[in-house]
Amino acid sequence: MIVGFIGLGGMGQGVARRIMQGGHDLRVWNRSPGPAEALAAEGAEAVAGPAGALDADLCLSMLSQDEVIDQVLVASGALEKARPGLVHVNLSTVSVAFAERMEALHRERGLSYVSAPVLGRPDVAAAGQLNVLCAGAPEAVAKATPVLELFAKKVWPLGDRAARASVVKIACNFALASMIETLGEAGALVEGHDVPAADLYDVMTGTVFASPAYKIYSGLIADRAFEPAGFKLPLGLKDVRLALQAGETAATPLPIASLLRDAFIEAIAAGDSEKDWSALGAGAFRRAGRPLG
Amino acid sequence: MIVGFIGLGGMGQGVARRIMQGGHDLRVWNRSPGPAEALAAEGAEAVAGPAGALDADLCLSMLSQDEVIDQVLVASGALEKARPGLVHVNLSTVSVAFAERMEALHRERGLSYVSAPVLGRPDVAAAGQLNVLCAGAPEAVAKATPVLELFAKKVWPLGDRAARASVVKIACNFALASMIETLGEAGALVEGHDVPAADLYDVMTGTVFASPAYKIYSGLIADRAFEPAGFKLPLGLKDVRLALQAGETAATPLPIASLLRDAFIEAIAAGDSEKDWSALGAGAFRRAGRPLG
Amino acid sequence: MIVGFIGLGGMGQGVARRIMQGGHDLRVWNRSPGPAEALAAEGAEAVAGPAGALDADLCLSMLSQDEVIDQVLVASGALEKARPGLVHVNLSTVSVAFAERMEALHRERGLSYVSAPVLGRPDVAAAGQLNVLCAGAPEAVAKATPVLELFAKKVWPLGDRAARASVVKIACNFALASMIETLGEAGALVEGHDVPAADLYDVMTGTVFASPAYKIYSGLIADRAFEPAGFKLPLGLKDVRLALQAGETAATPLPIASLLRDAFIEAIAAGDSEKDWSALGAGAFRRAGRPLG
Amino acid sequence: MIVGFIGLGGMGQGVARRIMQGGHDLRVWNRSPGPAEALAAEGAEAVAGPAGALDADLCLSMLSQDEVIDQVLVASGALEKARPGLVHVNLSTVSVAFAERMEALHRERGLSYVSAPVLGRPDVAAAGQLNVLCAGAPEAVAKATPVLELFAKKVWPLGDRAARASVVKIACNFALASMIETLGEAGALVEGHDVPAADLYDVMTGTVFASPAYKIYSGLIADRAFEPAGFKLPLGLKDVRLALQAGETAATPLPIASLLRDAFIEAIAAGDSEKDWSALGAGAFRRAGRPLG
Repeated sequence: MIVGFIGLGGMGQGVARRIMQGGHDLRVWNRSPGPAEALAAEGAEAVAGPAGALDADLCLSMLSQDEVIDQVLVASGALEKARPGLVHVNLSTVSVAFAERMEALHRERGLSYVSAPVLGRPDVAAAGQLNVLCAGAPEAVAKATPVLELFAKKVWPLGDRAARASVVKIACNFALASMIETLGEAGALVEGHDVPAADLYDVMTGTVFASPAYKIYSGLIADRAFEPAGFKLPLGLKDVRLALQAGETAATPLPIASLLRDAFIEAIAAGDSEKDWSALGAGAFRRAGRPLG
Repeated sequence: MIVGFIGLGGMGQGVARRIMQGGHDLRVWNRSPGPAEALAAEGAEAVAGPAGALDADLCLSMLSQDEVIDQVLVASGALEKARPGLVHVNLSTVSVAFAERMEALHRERGLSYVSAPVLGRPDVAAAGQLNVLCAGAPEAVAKATPVLELFAKKVWPLGDRAARASVVKIACNFALASMIETLGEAGALVEGHDVPAADLYDVMTGTVFASPAYKIYSGLIADRAFEPAGFKLPLGLKDVRLALQAGETAATPLPIASLLRDAFIEAIAAGDSEKDWSALGAGAFRRAGRPLG
Repeated sequence: MIVGFIGLGGMGQGVARRIMQGGHDLRVWNRSPGPAEALAAEGAEAVAGPAGALDADLCLSMLSQDEVIDQVLVASGALEKARPGLVHVNLSTVSVAFAERMEALHRERGLSYVSAPVLGRPDVAAAGQLNVLCAGAPEAVAKATPVLELFAKKVWPLGDRAARASVVKIACNFALASMIETLGEAGALVEGHDVPAADLYDVMTGTVFASPAYKIYSGLIADRAFEPAGFKLPLGLKDVRLALQAGETAATPLPIASLLRDAFIEAIAAGDSEKDWSALGAGAFRRAGRPLG
Repeated sequence: MIVGFIGLGGMGQGVARRIMQGGHDLRVWNRSPGPAEALAAEGAEAVAGPAGALDADLCLSMLSQDEVIDQVLVASGALEKARPGLVHVNLSTVSVAFAERMEALHRERGLSYVSAPVLGRPDVAAAGQLNVLCAGAPEAVAKATPVLELFAKKVWPLGDRAARASVVKIACNFALASMIETLGEAGALVEGHDVPAADLYDVMTGTVFASPAYKIYSGLIADRAFEPAGFKLPLGLKDVRLALQAGETAATPLPIASLLRDAFIEAIAAGDSEKDWSALGAGAFRRAGRPLG
């Protein structure tokens, strides 16, 4: 099958490579040419623009946010030139409103739009162990699934409206940000009483919170390992903003999300924009007058 | 060994029974006589007052809060009559300040105080699978450990100052309350977009949040199973208050804990005082005008 | 002077009438024709579209929000047809980003844009006692000022960048919303101790808080006089959102604004969308299980 | 009339002097002797202990908080020695629970307790322009009022239960703290857009917020005039804590008060304990990475 791929950042590269290794003809495009050339050296075809990647049976995109996707695919006119019958699988975390708009735009053009945001960081993507949240028209999802399985630990079916996968992904990322801030506050609390945060985190992740996310993020905070970023802090702010917007649309107050938004902005004001979003957890220590590192 | 036990609530009964089954002579006391009589029928000795339980080699207490412990053990004069050399193991979650005061009070009387708050709910206690956070003087801890292991999945050593185990326990309970509120907000968010909260919880607990606490509490929220209470909601408020107090002592702001405090009070104002603290997660649905159940 | 006027809501009507009474030839337009016809009966000229009102020496607009202004003036093409040299005075509260964009759009077309958001409610507008916050190019402001003074108690000069008046207005409305929520919480607190909120408000407005805003809004809350709305609750949410956006642009966390945003959304979820934004103050009573009215 | 006075801090000295100037025989006591000696030089009698001041027809106290009052008057045994029929007027801001306890303690001893917390800073006290919130048994209030009027701009009658004046005072101080934080956030917002906070404050205090509190506190923030303290920042934290406690007793969530509590603790962690509580307003600038002064 001819598979297009748009957006070769840290996550995208790992995913694209898995698809190529799965035996598909891959047509890749990225805004800066370096990553596409690297994949071309491994056998992919580097196309000249996004329209080239949409000239495929299936095209996956992994871009940073609504505005970028809109610019690259819609405003550029690329979507108008997509191969008839194309199934476009968007792996990015986008707003609920944008997912709905994209679904409609594709339908109007006889194309299919599948929302398939992923849970996992770049190393997990490269290992083909992402969790893929997937929603869209059943036939389109059926066509996409074998490709998704090339890089997925599991594909989670979430129904036939694309926005459903988006809102679940947004809620997961909100819960992750809440966990990071909570780990930071809890760690700052015990350190204020002369117990190393790492001791608390050992208890937590050895008992009631024995989950991958708690282990990874408490480790990053305890080790002050905020660079290099697996997921940059401003992207966390973006995702919390998506949660707040989706909440407002549904008249659902989200007080923890509001608090997280301020904490992200405070971290950015403190100069943490290039750090991993786990640096959100450093805020509690800073507010207590005991900054990390 | 003669072991005293004070406080036979839902948690205490399970723990006491495990100790008795471990072959120790148990002297039990409880404010209301029923539970002590039940254990007496199984072979324990029901003593007339807390002093009777402190006339032992080792005495464990599991009472609801600082004020009750103070009243039962200190103000009553019972501690004055404790057997010389007694090791008192307090399984309750108490404030950092109270742990420090109790440690000093025991030391002055030639007694030992071990702080050993537990993680787990009544069924876990009965099954002998509690996680026990343990801090105190090394010899006292050494004497207590074999008894703790009768009901513990694991004993977590946290150093030689009793308050260390207390602050770690307080931080864990704060993190649990934060998780409950976050599950509620995330669930209300997706339900506002026509995705059942249970679908989100399946994804969360099947991926990054695959831990016992997330599984148990998301299940309770999804099933609206707030009664009977395993841990009553006002006790959750108490523990968040302990976190806030400990934070204030250490000049550590805890914005999420502050938010949780208000959410607990709001739940109490809404009539949820007899429910399990997982009912905190119902608040987000109520604030969105879509109350659960 | 020929003066155009676009947007004849409750506030706009009062302002427009004052300008007409000041002796100017008024060309009015409103989306729904009723208000324009009413003013026409008093001597104004009801024009067929917004372009007709922009065919003037000076044109004032008072519309609800960025999107509406964009639609009515920019997307409609009306601004392209404006009389050369026109000074457009926008009395609406708009976002900082929109003020900057409008200023640039006008400059490109040889027009002038003055930002002149007002403080006051409809009755104050009709009485010509509004406080007008004014920023823009000095010559444009000089041309506009005599007209502004027809309905202003005072014109506050805020410099030559239009966005300056917008951000000051946004900050004022944020402070008003904070005051309303604070009055609500303080009132709910004393009523919880059997003191009528009105007794507290008497003390506050008779002492340290003896200002118009405190008197008006505490009276509305004490009297549960939330209808008819002088300023609808969702417009308050809009303005707090503008504050949050402007804060984010400047990396400035605004925790009270975040809290207010949730409180507004909660009020909307509770069915208060048609009420005055003073109904925000009812939230504290509702959260305490003692709803007003 | 023989009038006792206990507690000669910045506020107390001004009040005591006004009473002495009103022609009363004043018996003063203060923990550190300096202020009492100064007043003795002006004609007061410096007594040896608090019991000496309670040996009077009327005794006023102005101490910092519940614990201090309890220690000085109750635990010391001084209250036991009070002159029969004494009316004790407490000018301090105390908790609702403490006001109720003091009222009962006095009643049991045949004494009267009047709660009369004041609004105003030391200079206002010295000028005899305080606003006095007053509650207690009618005869006791009647006896106290002529003395209160010696230093009051106005005495506000709040009923016959002492706690009523306390909760109103607590609510006022909460509203003042909310105003300070709001002024800080609003000021940081406009400064983030290149408008001096002072320009915003001029507009606010010249229009809707033209009240003494807004003028004084916005001036202190704009001028960074946080020292010397008229009311130290930790006392502001104390009063917000009183609001939160009183709210919890009445099952009333106070989200703004919770936020203020964290902001106070953050200011203390940043080293502002000796500053005026207006320094709370500096927090928003610090969180935005633009600390004041």
